[in-house]
Amino acid sequence: MTHRGFASDNYAGVHPDVLAAIAEANVGHAPAYGADEVTAQAEARFRDVLGDDVETFFVFNGTGANVTGLQPMLHSWESVICANTAHINVDECGAPERALGAKLIDLPTDDGKLTPDLVRNAISGVGDEHRTQARVVSVTQSTELGTVYTPDELATLADTVHSLGMYLHADGARISNAAASLGIDLRATSGAVGVDVLSFGGTKNGLLGGEAVVFFRPELARDARYVRKQQMQLASKMRFVSAQFLALLTDDLWHRNAQHANTMAARLFEAVSDVPGVAVTRPVQANAVFAILPAPVIPALQARFPFYVWDETTHEVRWMCSWDTTEDDVDEFAAAVRTLVPVSV
Amino acid sequence: MTHRGFASDNYAGVHPDVLAAIAEANVGHAPAYGADEVTAQAEARFRDVLGDDVETFFVFNGTGANVTGLQPMLHSWESVICANTAHINVDECGAPERALGAKLIDLPTDDGKLTPDLVRNAISGVGDEHRTQARVVSVTQSTELGTVYTPDELATLADTVHSLGMYLHADGARISNAAASLGIDLRATSGAVGVDVLSFGGTKNGLLGGEAVVFFRPELARDARYVRKQQMQLASKMRFVSAQFLALLTDDLWHRNAQHANTMAARLFEAVSDVPGVAVTRPVQANAVFAILPAPVIPALQARFPFYVWDETTHEVRWMCSWDTTEDDVDEFAAAVRTLVPVSV
Amino acid sequence: MTHRGFASDNYAGVHPDVLAAIAEANVGHAPAYGADEVTAQAEARFRDVLGDDVETFFVFNGTGANVTGLQPMLHSWESVICANTAHINVDECGAPERALGAKLIDLPTDDGKLTPDLVRNAISGVGDEHRTQARVVSVTQSTELGTVYTPDELATLADTVHSLGMYLHADGARISNAAASLGIDLRATSGAVGVDVLSFGGTKNGLLGGEAVVFFRPELARDARYVRKQQMQLASKMRFVSAQFLALLTDDLWHRNAQHANTMAARLFEAVSDVPGVAVTRPVQANAVFAILPAPVIPALQARFPFYVWDETTHEVRWMCSWDTTEDDVDEFAAAVRTLVPVSV
Amino acid sequence: MTHRGFASDNYAGVHPDVLAAIAEANVGHAPAYGADEVTAQAEARFRDVLGDDVETFFVFNGTGANVTGLQPMLHSWESVICANTAHINVDECGAPERALGAKLIDLPTDDGKLTPDLVRNAISGVGDEHRTQARVVSVTQSTELGTVYTPDELATLADTVHSLGMYLHADGARISNAAASLGIDLRATSGAVGVDVLSFGGTKNGLLGGEAVVFFRPELARDARYVRKQQMQLASKMRFVSAQFLALLTDDLWHRNAQHANTMAARLFEAVSDVPGVAVTRPVQANAVFAILPAPVIPALQARFPFYVWDETTHEVRWMCSWDTTEDDVDEFAAAVRTLVPVSV
Repeated sequence: MTHRGFASDNYAGVHPDVLAAIAEANVGHAPAYGADEVTAQAEARFRDVLGDDVETFFVFNGTGANVTGLQPMLHSWESVICANTAHINVDECGAPERALGAKLIDLPTDDGKLTPDLVRNAISGVGDEHRTQARVVSVTQSTELGTVYTPDELATLADTVHSLGMYLHADGARISNAAASLGIDLRATSGAVGVDVLSFGGTKNGLLGGEAVVFFRPELARDARYVRKQQMQLASKMRFVSAQFLALLTDDLWHRNAQHANTMAARLFEAVSDVPGVAVTRPVQANAVFAILPAPVIPALQARFPFYVWDETTHEVRWMCSWDTTEDDVDEFAAAVRTLVPVSV
Repeated sequence: MTHRGFASDNYAGVHPDVLAAIAEANVGHAPAYGADEVTAQAEARFRDVLGDDVETFFVFNGTGANVTGLQPMLHSWESVICANTAHINVDECGAPERALGAKLIDLPTDDGKLTPDLVRNAISGVGDEHRTQARVVSVTQSTELGTVYTPDELATLADTVHSLGMYLHADGARISNAAASLGIDLRATSGAVGVDVLSFGGTKNGLLGGEAVVFFRPELARDARYVRKQQMQLASKMRFVSAQFLALLTDDLWHRNAQHANTMAARLFEAVSDVPGVAVTRPVQANAVFAILPAPVIPALQARFPFYVWDETTHEVRWMCSWDTTEDDVDEFAAAVRTLVPVSV
Repeated sequence: MTHRGFASDNYAGVHPDVLAAIAEANVGHAPAYGADEVTAQAEARFRDVLGDDVETFFVFNGTGANVTGLQPMLHSWESVICANTAHINVDECGAPERALGAKLIDLPTDDGKLTPDLVRNAISGVGDEHRTQARVVSVTQSTELGTVYTPDELATLADTVHSLGMYLHADGARISNAAASLGIDLRATSGAVGVDVLSFGGTKNGLLGGEAVVFFRPELARDARYVRKQQMQLASKMRFVSAQFLALLTDDLWHRNAQHANTMAARLFEAVSDVPGVAVTRPVQANAVFAILPAPVIPALQARFPFYVWDETTHEVRWMCSWDTTEDDVDEFAAAVRTLVPVSV
Repeated sequence: MTHRGFASDNYAGVHPDVLAAIAEANVGHAPAYGADEVTAQAEARFRDVLGDDVETFFVFNGTGANVTGLQPMLHSWESVICANTAHINVDECGAPERALGAKLIDLPTDDGKLTPDLVRNAISGVGDEHRTQARVVSVTQSTELGTVYTPDELATLADTVHSLGMYLHADGARISNAAASLGIDLRATSGAVGVDVLSFGGTKNGLLGGEAVVFFRPELARDARYVRKQQMQLASKMRFVSAQFLALLTDDLWHRNAQHANTMAARLFEAVSDVPGVAVTRPVQANAVFAILPAPVIPALQARFPFYVWDETTHEVRWMCSWDTTEDDVDEFAAAVRTLVPVSV
């Protein structure tokens, strides 16, 4: 299938600049496992972008990034507080529990975002060996519900987390969308506001495949290469992962791709929010639009443009825009919504 | 670095056909996580090549392939018998133990190859709950020492393994080199001779990155997709992994690449085996040449062409050829050997 | 401290019959690890009591029993549905996650009891490899809140669970209290109503230390002795664990102990339920009384008779009776409550 | 069965003093999980015996002790060097691998004892993320082969281990036998000669059931109570485990029991070593005698006194003496050996 739709930003392909960077790196031999020059350049680029003292480890996928980033922060008898919508909680087939041996404490939220109060109330049994000890708070930026933490929200949360002797992890599979939405740079929504470890997303923002684990505290990165290897996340021909990130961080490609996806989501929201029968359910702050539709119209719309039903019981759907979504895609889909939904109401 | 050497076949880059296949797959949107058409084609191609009833799961890397393939065969209280040189034993940072919870029983061998007698002697405590129960025998084809099991050797070993109620796993990171060396097809050195689960190597034979786990017994594959996901080996933009394998299994690219690497190793062997001071230590049956050199000459040779010292205590070195090694590379390196080694003896 | 209180039934000591049974077993040598005659007798006694086809494995403690019983029912990518108050969820320091690698799906309940509707609503993503697959429902009988499932409730829940292709596990750390409360035998509240695997509690009902894992489906028990050993729950001098269970299942000691504890809880409830300022919060169906007290009076009461605050935020306390609680203990404590609480209101 | 034999020191029962101590502790209520006074006394006794700064944690069994003691010393990507005869390697059903996620590097030895050279030669790949990083050396004192490390041997080994940045663990399931054999106190063969963590054996030396994990470096004990709980080794009615250790460390019961078992082994050795057809295979330094016998005579001897065949292929048997072995037992058995073996030669 080559038809674009609104199913997921990982249905999209590879940005041409990224593919070109891979091809460009495909010259002669290079040391394996990250000892090559392209990887050195990509790591340096991350220091330019996120801070001189960050340590960056490239991995294969989001689940691998989250596990590799979380492990150095916690023992197996400690736990991770997260929103119950978090990717680590619902979309990773229990990989965190198996790979870390640790418990996730998943909290209901209004909008996919944790708050200091939610975190504080979730903590109990401190020092009691019968209870797991909460050690990490994990946020998703932007969230699985398409919302975005403001820098103030993150900074306040980080203060709470740190004052409790805990670490702040951010699953940034879509951190570029968040930064673009906020109009700030990547550091301003991660290390600068107290994030200790970041899963930096690449695949959903135009890469062929690759994520980066960024440690803002060097002491947490000390053993990360053993973690990455043992957790099966070390690429042998690493240059081809690194080259993708080098491209993503060149000429602000990360921003262009993310901004475009966000803009398309905003365009879609504008076009359908006033359609009778369409109830947009979440603030549209990044590249996703959530809406409740009349159940009968959903299959017909999906036949035109693929997308997922987010909640089978409420008929809430998710429309995800990506770096390659076109204005025509949006307009054509919005037209279908405008045509099909009101009829079915 | 773009200078070719003899360090590893994963120092080599991507074969042009493979890169072209990736580019070709980069059209429009495709369902993620393997629900796309390219993946369906690649899975079908594996059935063409390895048998109608095989089930194939693409993963990121060799360690991931081995873990994903081994898990469905064993409980954590069972164990895996392997050569002490096996990749799972020495090169995966303990990933099998951590990810499977199981013990490896590693055996010394002459040539990296297990035999029925070695396996039988390694088994004890059957039915005794204090002992791990040997459940899987894992071979490497071709081995880490550059040797190759004949079909008869594998079939005899498989008979023993199966008669003991165990499974046979093959780490085929270089199975193409083995098949090319034997002059047989891929099935003839895997499923046809009793291999139950195969880690089919791609990265070392010209791919950008990707391995395949092939189950020759459908019942073992029943839950493999959960295993793959939880073990963090499921690619979201799967089409770009699948496309590589499709290219590798098109027009016998797998064979051309592997045969070429083998031929280069044979050429190198021919060129240096009679050099005074060079003691070739292993039969050259695939794409590796092992030799003991005078210690002082090693750094000078490495400065010309990168390669690894295999055993620091005996000064045994490994020279690995790859799909892109040229005759000139071999000849130039052999000349350096012929020049530098005798002088140092 | 030798002062009795209402802190926990594991503050109580060993019933004299149990200690006598240990001493009686202490004659000469006996095969280790359960191959002795006392263990054979105890296993036979369990078959008498719970059914001819049950398989029983003695272990050290409740957490060990739960893990040993759960493991044969699920793969690590599967999950366990339980009440959020369940011992496995909050009192085992994450042992299930670490030892099983599996996720717990913990549900809020009114009274510590799961219902078919709660279970059904908790299941989603069936067949979706990104989600853990719900495989086991775990109930606690009697619950951590002192409530008891009726046989009908368990049978109906079991029907639902089995119809969904899942297993029913019961944490029966206090199953004797439940059976005594219901006036039925042990089988009638476990295997007879659809429980597949039972953690049969001993320690809290008068043993020195010991729990039993009872499998009502022989196929689930097939590998249980390997699980028990690898999970570090196999006693070498097993006869001294088995002897305790033999005593517990002789002359209905299990029932006498549990009935007594229940009666004492009922007596306490009767004595304090009408005291102004005491709000009993849970139905008193087994050996626990839960009540909300004025905060200031709690320390003074605890100084007289130890007990735990169950919920720091609501000032709910738990008073647990045991096999050795006396009528005088209850009356004396009730008098203290009657004296101290109203004053503080 | 109440007939004494030479099968194992865990076939023996409970020393009367230990049983009396349990009964004595069975008065009234006591806080659970180790917060009781008996446990405090037992911990203090360990400090008296092993040093003021040791931290002691009581657990259920030997496997649990080894896992609880090892975990604080290593990450899962690190490894444990041990003799291939070590209990952790062959008798724990892979519990260390599953519970720790770490690899064991098991070395052949002459006599069950590791040496500095053996350890040094086993280390490779330091700093290489593809290799597990050797972090702990684990010795058994006395060994599974009935031999004993001298204080000098342990001290020299400890120096090597520490100079390599590693820790020294001792599985002291029979440390009392070792100390008695050497004529020194318990500290002189553990903390005083560089052992960092000790599994202190109780069950095999006259307890009903219980082992102690002793940390000689307080920093390693920091999180041990979480480890113990999550690894399912925390007893609720702890006082009954602690009371046993208190008895064992009172009036040198540990020494009397161990010395007696050793003396019986020496007596047995004296009585049979010159019997034609009996080839004693190991130095008799603790409470075990190993010998090769003519195969046909073994079943007849076992019928008289149970014992185990250690090696089925060489017909080596193990005769283990315990605290309750009598001189008559030894003499009667030796007479049987003297009568039956020569006939069969």
